[in-house]
Amino acid sequence: MKKLWGGRFSEEVDGRVIEFTGSFCFDVRLLPYDIKGSIAHARMLEKIGLLTAGELDRIIGSLEDIKKEFADNPPRDTREEDVHTFVENRLREKLGDLAGKLHTARSRNDQVALDMKLYLLDMTGRVLSSLGKLKKTLTDRAGENLDVVMPGFTHLQPAQPVLLAHHLMAYFEMFQRDSGRFADAANRASEMPLGAGALAGTSIPIDREMVARELGFRSVSKNSLDSVSERDFPLEFLAAASITMVHLSRLAEEMVLWASPVFGFIELPDRLATGSSMMPQKKNPDAAELTRGKTGRVFGHLMGLLTVMKGLPLAYQRDLQEDKEAVFDAADTLIGCLGAIELYVAGVRFRSDRMSEEARRDHTAATDLAEYLVFKGMPFRQAHEVIGKVVRDAISKGRNIDELTPRELRSHSDLFDEDVADILSPAGSVASKRSPGSTSPAMVADAVKKAREILEAEEGGR
Amino acid sequence: MKKLWGGRFSEEVDGRVIEFTGSFCFDVRLLPYDIKGSIAHARMLEKIGLLTAGELDRIIGSLEDIKKEFADNPPRDTREEDVHTFVENRLREKLGDLAGKLHTARSRNDQVALDMKLYLLDMTGRVLSSLGKLKKTLTDRAGENLDVVMPGFTHLQPAQPVLLAHHLMAYFEMFQRDSGRFADAANRASEMPLGAGALAGTSIPIDREMVARELGFRSVSKNSLDSVSERDFPLEFLAAASITMVHLSRLAEEMVLWASPVFGFIELPDRLATGSSMMPQKKNPDAAELTRGKTGRVFGHLMGLLTVMKGLPLAYQRDLQEDKEAVFDAADTLIGCLGAIELYVAGVRFRSDRMSEEARRDHTAATDLAEYLVFKGMPFRQAHEVIGKVVRDAISKGRNIDELTPRELRSHSDLFDEDVADILSPAGSVASKRSPGSTSPAMVADAVKKAREILEAEEGGR
Amino acid sequence: MKKLWGGRFSEEVDGRVIEFTGSFCFDVRLLPYDIKGSIAHARMLEKIGLLTAGELDRIIGSLEDIKKEFADNPPRDTREEDVHTFVENRLREKLGDLAGKLHTARSRNDQVALDMKLYLLDMTGRVLSSLGKLKKTLTDRAGENLDVVMPGFTHLQPAQPVLLAHHLMAYFEMFQRDSGRFADAANRASEMPLGAGALAGTSIPIDREMVARELGFRSVSKNSLDSVSERDFPLEFLAAASITMVHLSRLAEEMVLWASPVFGFIELPDRLATGSSMMPQKKNPDAAELTRGKTGRVFGHLMGLLTVMKGLPLAYQRDLQEDKEAVFDAADTLIGCLGAIELYVAGVRFRSDRMSEEARRDHTAATDLAEYLVFKGMPFRQAHEVIGKVVRDAISKGRNIDELTPRELRSHSDLFDEDVADILSPAGSVASKRSPGSTSPAMVADAVKKAREILEAEEGGR
Amino acid sequence: MKKLWGGRFSEEVDGRVIEFTGSFCFDVRLLPYDIKGSIAHARMLEKIGLLTAGELDRIIGSLEDIKKEFADNPPRDTREEDVHTFVENRLREKLGDLAGKLHTARSRNDQVALDMKLYLLDMTGRVLSSLGKLKKTLTDRAGENLDVVMPGFTHLQPAQPVLLAHHLMAYFEMFQRDSGRFADAANRASEMPLGAGALAGTSIPIDREMVARELGFRSVSKNSLDSVSERDFPLEFLAAASITMVHLSRLAEEMVLWASPVFGFIELPDRLATGSSMMPQKKNPDAAELTRGKTGRVFGHLMGLLTVMKGLPLAYQRDLQEDKEAVFDAADTLIGCLGAIELYVAGVRFRSDRMSEEARRDHTAATDLAEYLVFKGMPFRQAHEVIGKVVRDAISKGRNIDELTPRELRSHSDLFDEDVADILSPAGSVASKRSPGSTSPAMVADAVKKAREILEAEEGGR
Repeated sequence: MKKLWGGRFSEEVDGRVIEFTGSFCFDVRLLPYDIKGSIAHARMLEKIGLLTAGELDRIIGSLEDIKKEFADNPPRDTREEDVHTFVENRLREKLGDLAGKLHTARSRNDQVALDMKLYLLDMTGRVLSSLGKLKKTLTDRAGENLDVVMPGFTHLQPAQPVLLAHHLMAYFEMFQRDSGRFADAANRASEMPLGAGALAGTSIPIDREMVARELGFRSVSKNSLDSVSERDFPLEFLAAASITMVHLSRLAEEMVLWASPVFGFIELPDRLATGSSMMPQKKNPDAAELTRGKTGRVFGHLMGLLTVMKGLPLAYQRDLQEDKEAVFDAADTLIGCLGAIELYVAGVRFRSDRMSEEARRDHTAATDLAEYLVFKGMPFRQAHEVIGKVVRDAISKGRNIDELTPRELRSHSDLFDEDVADILSPAGSVASKRSPGSTSPAMVADAVKKAREILEAEEGGR
Repeated sequence: MKKLWGGRFSEEVDGRVIEFTGSFCFDVRLLPYDIKGSIAHARMLEKIGLLTAGELDRIIGSLEDIKKEFADNPPRDTREEDVHTFVENRLREKLGDLAGKLHTARSRNDQVALDMKLYLLDMTGRVLSSLGKLKKTLTDRAGENLDVVMPGFTHLQPAQPVLLAHHLMAYFEMFQRDSGRFADAANRASEMPLGAGALAGTSIPIDREMVARELGFRSVSKNSLDSVSERDFPLEFLAAASITMVHLSRLAEEMVLWASPVFGFIELPDRLATGSSMMPQKKNPDAAELTRGKTGRVFGHLMGLLTVMKGLPLAYQRDLQEDKEAVFDAADTLIGCLGAIELYVAGVRFRSDRMSEEARRDHTAATDLAEYLVFKGMPFRQAHEVIGKVVRDAISKGRNIDELTPRELRSHSDLFDEDVADILSPAGSVASKRSPGSTSPAMVADAVKKAREILEAEEGGR
Repeated sequence: MKKLWGGRFSEEVDGRVIEFTGSFCFDVRLLPYDIKGSIAHARMLEKIGLLTAGELDRIIGSLEDIKKEFADNPPRDTREEDVHTFVENRLREKLGDLAGKLHTARSRNDQVALDMKLYLLDMTGRVLSSLGKLKKTLTDRAGENLDVVMPGFTHLQPAQPVLLAHHLMAYFEMFQRDSGRFADAANRASEMPLGAGALAGTSIPIDREMVARELGFRSVSKNSLDSVSERDFPLEFLAAASITMVHLSRLAEEMVLWASPVFGFIELPDRLATGSSMMPQKKNPDAAELTRGKTGRVFGHLMGLLTVMKGLPLAYQRDLQEDKEAVFDAADTLIGCLGAIELYVAGVRFRSDRMSEEARRDHTAATDLAEYLVFKGMPFRQAHEVIGKVVRDAISKGRNIDELTPRELRSHSDLFDEDVADILSPAGSVASKRSPGSTSPAMVADAVKKAREILEAEEGGR
Repeated sequence: MKKLWGGRFSEEVDGRVIEFTGSFCFDVRLLPYDIKGSIAHARMLEKIGLLTAGELDRIIGSLEDIKKEFADNPPRDTREEDVHTFVENRLREKLGDLAGKLHTARSRNDQVALDMKLYLLDMTGRVLSSLGKLKKTLTDRAGENLDVVMPGFTHLQPAQPVLLAHHLMAYFEMFQRDSGRFADAANRASEMPLGAGALAGTSIPIDREMVARELGFRSVSKNSLDSVSERDFPLEFLAAASITMVHLSRLAEEMVLWASPVFGFIELPDRLATGSSMMPQKKNPDAAELTRGKTGRVFGHLMGLLTVMKGLPLAYQRDLQEDKEAVFDAADTLIGCLGAIELYVAGVRFRSDRMSEEARRDHTAATDLAEYLVFKGMPFRQAHEVIGKVVRDAISKGRNIDELTPRELRSHSDLFDEDVADILSPAGSVASKRSPGSTSPAMVADAVKKAREILEAEEGGR
């Protein structure tokens, strides 16, 4: 295992140091990106005359061979220092000294910055695609359930009736912002770092713009010290992933709650549940629980990398190697959880019977009654107090307020007419809503329609 | 202290519960934003006929009085539940029952979401302005020091000579990305939440678009459940602040290192240093150390709020109250640290003598020598090995490689000509660079010029 | 505002630096501990002859006056650098030059290390006392409810019937470990740092053992560099607080779940609930939600201080100042949350009707039936499969397994006798348990008894 | 791949759910602990008559075969759900239905709690051993360097001369506290959870005390719900590991600083350094940088698991599965970093020439001079001011204060006699110290001696 350095060293490096500092066991994952970057770099070297056309062909051919060779059979066991060394050594086996020309005007410092950007831009695309699929499934399930009323909760107390579709579309909005966050991060990161060298640039008149174009970057990076020192894209990716995990964990929590027989709002098909080794009757929403749990892992990776970066002087420090496993695991975790939750959203059976049963519970018509009084001319704060007393009255009678007659209501205020009955049912309540963005059936149907248009546009743009 | 609820309650709330759950001691900070939002809400209520023009005038007049009254004299001691209650109770003292109309079609759930957005949009503006000032100072100091050469470090080992201006401009790039991150977050958050009510919207036909226009939002929020449940903007603000703190902590670390007499790269003017109560000779870079330390606090707030949000079912939960102190302290800390570091960057004296002394140290010409051989036709990897041996040779002779004669160099390779001397000095090294973004003096001067243009454009756009 | 340094400075320190680096606005909280430490230090200086007995009396008298003066009236507005400077300046106003003798053989570096230890040891005592009160309330409520059966959940699915008292005592165990963790931390930290000076110790032959005895420490710290550089006790306190918050957040989560009408396992008395400004019917478990939310804040402080400490070279760095607000807020938060949850545990009404109703739900007798078959000689894994089929059979018949007759059960296995009925009820199930630590009524009663003995012993020992 | 459940399921579980929820790819690491626990459980089942002696022999024999079989050849590729299922299925292949008896009175919930405790107790032993080795090396290097004086820094400014040995022994103290923290955690966790069943205990009259004795636990756990729900030991292990990483990161930071030619306090032997692929002259302290960087990873795991645990209702939830990878990686990382730093401490060459050169720099005698005046009767605060002026005077003369003559000193105070020269040299300064725990050579030698005694006692006790 030849190292890419050593001329000045008079003693072999201690095996424990090699093992402790080696990164090949995980950065092997960058192999396709490393080769993609090397091919673009080689093309550029040929253009500026440091490689002949023939040399370029041989280098590209060999790099593509290496990629193919290890595509399905990742080289887990070799003892190379890192993926860059691994590729260069394989290339040397194939091409001899010619391989040594590829590292011209390039350091592992800028090379790994490029590899990580290529990897993360690729992963961002996959995340956006998984988010798109989940948003589509939420929209589809909302579209199928436009007439199902459920209790809207605040403080986990029934608050006001809402449409199940409205509830599902709340998550659409969250994941839509998530998509924007990932897209912004990718756009900001689209500056090509290769050519920064170890830290100072190079005296070789390379064509960085050409490499950027070859690899699909928006521009070249503007400062060589910054290019090898910064890890903003991994940090921003982890931050966006953490916020997406917040949203997934909330949806997962609701899946767990709703799947509990105490709620009974959803039923898991057997194919999405798992059982117990001791309790034969159990049917558990493990994938939702695990998604909720995996939130911690992604937060931890963000916190870990922030800690790594804190207070590091410029330029490259070996600490920066610690970005990789954090980002790899976060990306895998996020994509896995998006898939798991999408399966659940697509597969659960919504029990509209249980939802509408609970939608009436605990005086959820109270706010509608207060707004009814406002329509009739009472200031809201006073209406709020009147209805507070109506609730207390109903409780003392052991009834729900939607069971009070207009006459009983009138004992609290003359403003109650017979038409109050229209808003007392859950369906009446949601139908009464007038504000844009509310749970009004017409507005929710419109939100579903617009979401479909957005998703089609995104699909087309991809 | 009148509460905004209580009609249904038959027992006084325990004083310990009131104290534990009260938020007025910190959310009083939202008072100007709460009043701004209330004025826009009142205007809209007038437009849709729920307030008369005269009522609107009285409400606006009183709200502005309250704002003025408490502007310089924040009401720290009162025992109100929260800022919304405080304002409404003050308003009731002034206007009686009319005050009760203002809460029509509004819940504290959407009101606090609005207040926090108004606060954060305002803070984002201040952060962008502080970032702008720091970027300008970095650019100015870079412009003043275009000819100062210093050692570029990797692994804190001298690596290659770089320009001090190039080093400073690396931070310009970091803070430039930070500005973009804050701007993106503000843009994404510019959806006006008021009108979401407690969670379901309202049956009152309010004009949310009008309120959004009055308050300068891009649009109204699209889903009422989402509007009262999400805290994406605070999270994204904290994430952006954490990444900016990473950059500040790195610059602060370098200030601390460079101010150490062992480095001696900068000298602190007395007005920026602090002393010791025991050691009379000390002159410490406390503000830089403290900036580095305060990084932890901002990371902690991010981690704290992520934890708060994890796994919360929809819609509003009282946990969400925990967003405030985290965000308030993070914004203050960030703006404070940006100011402190700007003072340092503006005020330190760069010691070019010490920098150039260290720039020659430890064979920093080695990479240039290797690239010299590449120009003469040697493959890079081979050149790297040859120079490795040159370094070992120089060490064994107790000399630095820039002290070797062309003849001595030729004993390692025939390719060395007399012109090798041109690149052996630090100034020659930086002058030899050719890649865009490198430390070449011409390119760094150009980077400074472009940065000035960017800053002027930003200044104009603000 | 006299500073404690400045002899070598030829320029006034910039006001912005003073404001940014000042700590008095928060470290004023250390005032009583600072004075306590100063009194012990003064006594020692007198003993070794650096103060006369008369000087000692005047110093102690004045320090006690200062403490009294500011005890109820903390000096929020003064512009001193820190609490140490504040006390020394007040002392100088009272005693003139004599005040200057008190700082002999002492630096703010070791002084603040001492103050923080005294503060944290005091806070640890208060935390232990709050934990003790909560453990007692849990034990009392368990003792009152020894016969209430509820569903034990895993995955939020009913799993097996358990006693409510057993559930409550699970939290007793958690908080008992928490007490141990705080006690261990305090014991480990009980090394007195004063006398370390700025970092190197002092040439004055001070009697550190005497100061340690005066202040109740186990011993003196052993290395002066370590004494001023380490912040292990704050870190360990924050770690213990975070784990305790984990436990509190779990109990809080259950309070929120159980208070939801969907569960209906507890009823909040009005005095512990809070209402809604828009929805007149709401009765929310805000204090439990807020406890759950405040968990994030404590985690954040831990993460923040870990970040602060990472990679700091010895000895004192100004970054260390950042330990204070984190620890102050974490201690207040923890004590507040322990109190809030104790109020809830003490005050809620347990609805045994709803609990026992749900305890039968969803085939929770399944494990008992499987173990029944094991008793009759069937290997457990086979019994598990048989009961799985019994459950499927019951579901297909629309019944719960506790409603199956022995004859129906026998269609699945000959081993079922009439005595199977004994374990089919929730009460029969819990009564059948035999393993130590199980939910068997006798064992739970015993656990309550032993917990009372532990609490009495702790009470006595305090 | 047989699952341990499924009787009630009428549909195959979706392959994506199986893949997402499976843990075998990482929890295979628990295999030896799982088998150890199963053997103890089997012995107990035999004792209470649920297995015959012959059955016990066959089970133990097969379990030991399985352990041997997979010891060096971990079964990475199989598709089992988890390690428990894997072992049980292997056992079934060997023993048929007899294997099914082993799971009697046991659930995977208590089984995994046991496995994790056995694993962590084992790891704690290894951590303590690595800590012991590092403490010994620190003590040895201190003992070899009792006469080397270096500058003690505060704020990275030279503060007072200290002994290198004193500096090294500061880390001894930190790691000594770390050892205590791990030992306390292990002691607290030494409660045996098996027998808690799924959550409620079991109706089978098992002998938990016997299992606890077999496995070396202090006692049995006291509450079955707590036993399967809590993850305190992993949390406390991660917290202790995080604090240890703080200490390692500080030592690593100093290694990086000191190895920089600007400091030049240490020289790395080639066998501990690594090179650059672009810069032939580089010799980098990668292992120290990486240790500093890996600190983030351990903090991240702590934060991750705290987040996982926050707000989980009792009892077992699938989220708990997320404890494993965090703890596995943290344990490996910690042990790896302890080893790497030990290699560095053992292997670096301390350059006493550079250290003593810097020890005189920047007026580090100032505090000693102030204390000199105190000895002569001046109040400390006044002495501090006098010496501040002496420093300013020396600076204006372009000299260091240790170069001032007694006569020049006397121009600032009559109290300076000729004997002041004794303390002006670095060696004189350290020799003048009198406080216990100071950098006085005699006291440091004594600290080294006591440390050796402690280490011998620990060695003996292990």
